[in-house]
Amino acid sequence: MAEDVKEGLEGVVVAESELSYIDGDIGKLVYRGYAIEELAEDATYEEVLYLLWHGSLPTAGELDNFTAAMAEERDIDDYVLESLTELAAVDETPMAALRTAVSMLSAGDEEPGADPQDQAAALRKGRRITAKVPTILAAYQRLRDGEEPLEPRPALSHSGNFLYMLTGEEPDEVAEETLDMALTLHADHGLNASTFTSIVIASTLSDMYAAVTGGVGALSGPLHGGANQDVMETLIEVDRSEKDPVEWAQDALEEGRKIPGFGHRVYNVKDPRAVILEEKSRDLGDVSGEGKWYEYANKIENYLIEEEGFDEKGLAPNVDFYSGTVYYQLGIPVDMFTPIFAMSRVGGWVAHVLEQTEDNRIMRPRAKYTGEQDAEWVPIDER
Amino acid sequence: MAEDVKEGLEGVVVAESELSYIDGDIGKLVYRGYAIEELAEDATYEEVLYLLWHGSLPTAGELDNFTAAMAEERDIDDYVLESLTELAAVDETPMAALRTAVSMLSAGDEEPGADPQDQAAALRKGRRITAKVPTILAAYQRLRDGEEPLEPRPALSHSGNFLYMLTGEEPDEVAEETLDMALTLHADHGLNASTFTSIVIASTLSDMYAAVTGGVGALSGPLHGGANQDVMETLIEVDRSEKDPVEWAQDALEEGRKIPGFGHRVYNVKDPRAVILEEKSRDLGDVSGEGKWYEYANKIENYLIEEEGFDEKGLAPNVDFYSGTVYYQLGIPVDMFTPIFAMSRVGGWVAHVLEQTEDNRIMRPRAKYTGEQDAEWVPIDER
Repeated sequence: MAEDVKEGLEGVVVAESELSYIDGDIGKLVYRGYAIEELAEDATYEEVLYLLWHGSLPTAGELDNFTAAMAEERDIDDYVLESLTELAAVDETPMAALRTAVSMLSAGDEEPGADPQDQAAALRKGRRITAKVPTILAAYQRLRDGEEPLEPRPALSHSGNFLYMLTGEEPDEVAEETLDMALTLHADHGLNASTFTSIVIASTLSDMYAAVTGGVGALSGPLHGGANQDVMETLIEVDRSEKDPVEWAQDALEEGRKIPGFGHRVYNVKDPRAVILEEKSRDLGDVSGEGKWYEYANKIENYLIEEEGFDEKGLAPNVDFYSGTVYYQLGIPVDMFTPIFAMSRVGGWVAHVLEQTEDNRIMRPRAKYTGEQDAEWVPIDER
Repeated sequence: MAEDVKEGLEGVVVAESELSYIDGDIGKLVYRGYAIEELAEDATYEEVLYLLWHGSLPTAGELDNFTAAMAEERDIDDYVLESLTELAAVDETPMAALRTAVSMLSAGDEEPGADPQDQAAALRKGRRITAKVPTILAAYQRLRDGEEPLEPRPALSHSGNFLYMLTGEEPDEVAEETLDMALTLHADHGLNASTFTSIVIASTLSDMYAAVTGGVGALSGPLHGGANQDVMETLIEVDRSEKDPVEWAQDALEEGRKIPGFGHRVYNVKDPRAVILEEKSRDLGDVSGEGKWYEYANKIENYLIEEEGFDEKGLAPNVDFYSGTVYYQLGIPVDMFTPIFAMSRVGGWVAHVLEQTEDNRIMRPRAKYTGEQDAEWVPIDER
């Protein structure tokens, strides 16, 4: 039998999904039919979660109930906080700390024995995890900085409360709306590697905690969630070089370096999320006084597209190219960028796990065996 | 474009591998060319790990060094033990506790920033995790029983030390060899769901800890690692029913119940591991005085195959059908069966992660979108 190896599973359709649709040729992304531009502009992250998890936009009453239920779930148990304290003391990375803390959350679940195919129970678990991720991350950042973690404030929005717990100050409207928009933009994106990880785990009928823990692990990889941080570190390097960004880019290409934030398997044109974040990054510059980050990114993009023909090679800016400049202008530390991606994408993981378990088949592909056949056993003293 | 959904990825070849080959039509399983029957009989688990990770059987000197290096890595940090204590206090499941503890191990890694594609560093991480899994599991079991965890004894084998840490007594030769054989049998099995999870995570160039944590999560599902426990619980039910096992099976089928431990996606005949474990289970009965468990399983198997034609339906006994009766006769608690599976399979996860990262492509399949197109946004107060 000829065995066609589907490397990286490119183009292989592994499931049906009603969650997000991507047309990579025209740069279109929708969640359940709603254009990402519209959701970014008009919907809160909580509203997007409701849409993804419940299938339709909430009424005002439904959204109030949902938001209140989420806000009530923000606290984390003392033993989770103690573990985070230990991990901060040995300088664990925020993504690994998040992975451990999310895994640990299952111990406090009120319905530990729930059937993993009970959709309502699985949704409650997913909501519980999603509500607690910002608390975990903000606590961890403060512990790393030698500061006391703060209690969540239930009256604040998901985004606003995270910024408050991180900084100790309730954020202004611009910061809160900007983060909320970034969370909306990153909430779902088809079967990316972390979402795919979550559904593979869920396909064994493991529970939501196992699935989301796996998603965090996959997202931490530099080929996936780590790219936003790489872009920002690159821009900081541009700044320190004191070169003109175009000159810097020319030199980098000459040295054979790869510029992070360009190219994406599913887009042949500019990622629609990059378009939105670019605009946001530019606008933020006016209020943050840190407009240079947008400027560097924009100059490098224009140079690579217009002079180096990156777009003809399918290397258009992806979501990571501008997200970092947005977070940086909000005063968020660089190694919290990927955790913020996780804080958003957890919504997508939960939604896909619900879809997977509703009509489940265990994921069990095959490998093409290229090893030895019929090796002859040799006792150890004759080797 | 017609989109053929590969549900459960059945038959889809996602990677090349030199690790294990399965011929499901004749019940053949090999690791790197060596027949599983030969490895079960003649190789120790440490030797199998060496074979899987290094590509060839070790010389006596290589095996000594490898075994010593593994034994030195058995200790776990105090903060891992403290977390296990907290988790035991709230009655977390052993598999979830293992998932959290494995995730936490990354914090104590001596090369945290190692390039995930540095094969030697990745192998050291994998060896480190594999060495510590038995310590985690034995400690957790003792904590649940209100007993103090025991320090590992480096002079004992991987299997022997686990049984010692679990029970507080150095095991006899039969028990040690039996567990060692069970570990060998479960060490690798192509791209099962947990191994596949590990390589999907690794494909983002996340590290070994993320990949193995994901593997533990996937294995905890009842459709995957949980089945050995289901079989034992079923046999305990048979025992309590005081029915003849055949009568019990007839009644169970009449009630439309599924008998666990039968059928496997990749085998059309009896799983070769079940053949070996069946024999071991029978032999153990003579020394354990608990021969009834083998007898129940064997009678049910014969009835289902000979009278109910299960084999014609592709429902032959799989590895889980006899493994439980083996562990139970060793005095291992039923909810430690899946953790013991993990303690073995971690060797396979590590080996596959090494293969994946050596020639990596990120796993990013697609979903067929079946949701709404062009939904019209309605402001919340008009919904």
